[in-house]
Amino acid sequence: MDAVKVFAPASVANVAVGYDILGFALDKPGDDIILRKKGDKPLHISSIHGKGKKLPREIHSNTAGFAAYKVLEALGEEKMPLQMELHKNMAFGTGLGSSAASAVAGAMAVNELLGRPFEKKDLLPFAVAGEEIADGAWHADNVAPSLLGGMVLIRDNNTLDFKKIHVPNGLYVSVIYPNVEVLTSDSRAVVSDFVSLEQLIKQTGNMGGFIAGMFTSDFELIKRSLQDHVIEPQRKHLIPYYEKLKEIALSEQALGFNISGAGPTMFALCSNNLIAENICEKASAFLADKKLESDVFVSGINLEGAIRY
Amino acid sequence: MDAVKVFAPASVANVAVGYDILGFALDKPGDDIILRKKGDKPLHISSIHGKGKKLPREIHSNTAGFAAYKVLEALGEEKMPLQMELHKNMAFGTGLGSSAASAVAGAMAVNELLGRPFEKKDLLPFAVAGEEIADGAWHADNVAPSLLGGMVLIRDNNTLDFKKIHVPNGLYVSVIYPNVEVLTSDSRAVVSDFVSLEQLIKQTGNMGGFIAGMFTSDFELIKRSLQDHVIEPQRKHLIPYYEKLKEIALSEQALGFNISGAGPTMFALCSNNLIAENICEKASAFLADKKLESDVFVSGINLEGAIRY
Repeated sequence: MDAVKVFAPASVANVAVGYDILGFALDKPGDDIILRKKGDKPLHISSIHGKGKKLPREIHSNTAGFAAYKVLEALGEEKMPLQMELHKNMAFGTGLGSSAASAVAGAMAVNELLGRPFEKKDLLPFAVAGEEIADGAWHADNVAPSLLGGMVLIRDNNTLDFKKIHVPNGLYVSVIYPNVEVLTSDSRAVVSDFVSLEQLIKQTGNMGGFIAGMFTSDFELIKRSLQDHVIEPQRKHLIPYYEKLKEIALSEQALGFNISGAGPTMFALCSNNLIAENICEKASAFLADKKLESDVFVSGINLEGAIRY
Repeated sequence: MDAVKVFAPASVANVAVGYDILGFALDKPGDDIILRKKGDKPLHISSIHGKGKKLPREIHSNTAGFAAYKVLEALGEEKMPLQMELHKNMAFGTGLGSSAASAVAGAMAVNELLGRPFEKKDLLPFAVAGEEIADGAWHADNVAPSLLGGMVLIRDNNTLDFKKIHVPNGLYVSVIYPNVEVLTSDSRAVVSDFVSLEQLIKQTGNMGGFIAGMFTSDFELIKRSLQDHVIEPQRKHLIPYYEKLKEIALSEQALGFNISGAGPTMFALCSNNLIAENICEKASAFLADKKLESDVFVSGINLEGAIRY
């Protein structure tokens, strides 16, 4: 085989009760990579299309390139002549795991082109290493769902100990991206290094309730559990109209509403797609009224993750 | 019907990752109550047997009496002539939910004698009100498992929002009670009102992992998740030989080891009863060697909770 084409989806991380440790994959958008065995030059990026034109092309500075390189290195194939074409269909800094999708696509592309020397799940550390370049932190709460699909708990980021969480039928998400910039560094800086014992008890109770609700398709419990007493109160002021959009989502019967990753994208989890569509319609109209450009769309939970196609 | 006899079991609360919110019921020990329609005196305690002879007999000061009274009050039957005989088979202050078992038995006895006007789960607030007398706090992490059996997550103590957690086949527990006194007040005083964000992330990750492991019978994940980064480090010095006993349990392949409730009882969760028995044998020999009296026993997870028999 001389060429493969792969897709890795966007993802929502920091899911309400799972700061740094819980994420899920979206159907769209996502990044595509075409990888070709060609010429005599080791792995290099021949072109970047779409929303990533400012990205570095040097392999060790590019998340997709570095993740791909790490897979080759593990196989002793660093010198294999490979040409990578990166199609970025999502902007950076939206809070939808753009760099994670690129890293996952990079690792996937190499593994597919070389005939799957690794199981898919074993690509996780390579993709995390790729994302680390963009993000400066070793964590898998975007990378793991983008690679593996579904809802993924990262019990421990250091050891990449993850568990896929059962996704009840009917779970949909409204994604609301207002076209404003929230710097990840700002978003991190506002989060205190300490929380109260009471907050810990509430957050562990809600995490336990959320996971139990997912495994038993108990939407009422999921709804009661989707309360973030720690991060949301500290971050919501960074996002315009956050409170108002949350109010819209909850009045339309969303299960929960929160910030996706470090923002500014927000998401509403819903027990069916009609609710998710209603929320999108109302949020969209509200933001248009405020003259704020936005991308608003409904997605299922992508159960497959990265694919070759 | 003129008399009923009920049993409510001991329980383990503060299960490692679930401080204040996670508990499970034991097969034994537990409290028995005999309740009789008799004479013309409203609910009163006629006798207390076993390990509770110092307990107050006045209905509003006794956990079993008060829980029973709250059920009668809700039914408008406060004046019904009733005689309660309380058999306490477990000492107070062991960390095994002794007052919770009494409160549950009190509420159960009235409900059974009166022909089950309430569903069992609806007795929870009455029993919690009973336990509040002994404990001074409104929480259900001992009461709920003693009443309902199994492993119970209390997502929120204020609203008594609980969820039963799937218990994998084969789960057993070694219970180690060294006969020393640990005052609940001391045990509370050592716990800081603040934790670091890093501890919160670890504890929510482990809570999520534990619940996911229970629902999927994934013993390896349960084991990796049973790590308490918050309470154990602050409390373990209150219990003699804690570190050594934990070492014994883990070297025998316990899934996890922690303090039961506020101590001094310790428990080891195990993936089968042979492991649980080996741990008990070694812990018992160790404590005997140290000339420390102890009660050490194996229990299954009691899936039934309080019963009439």
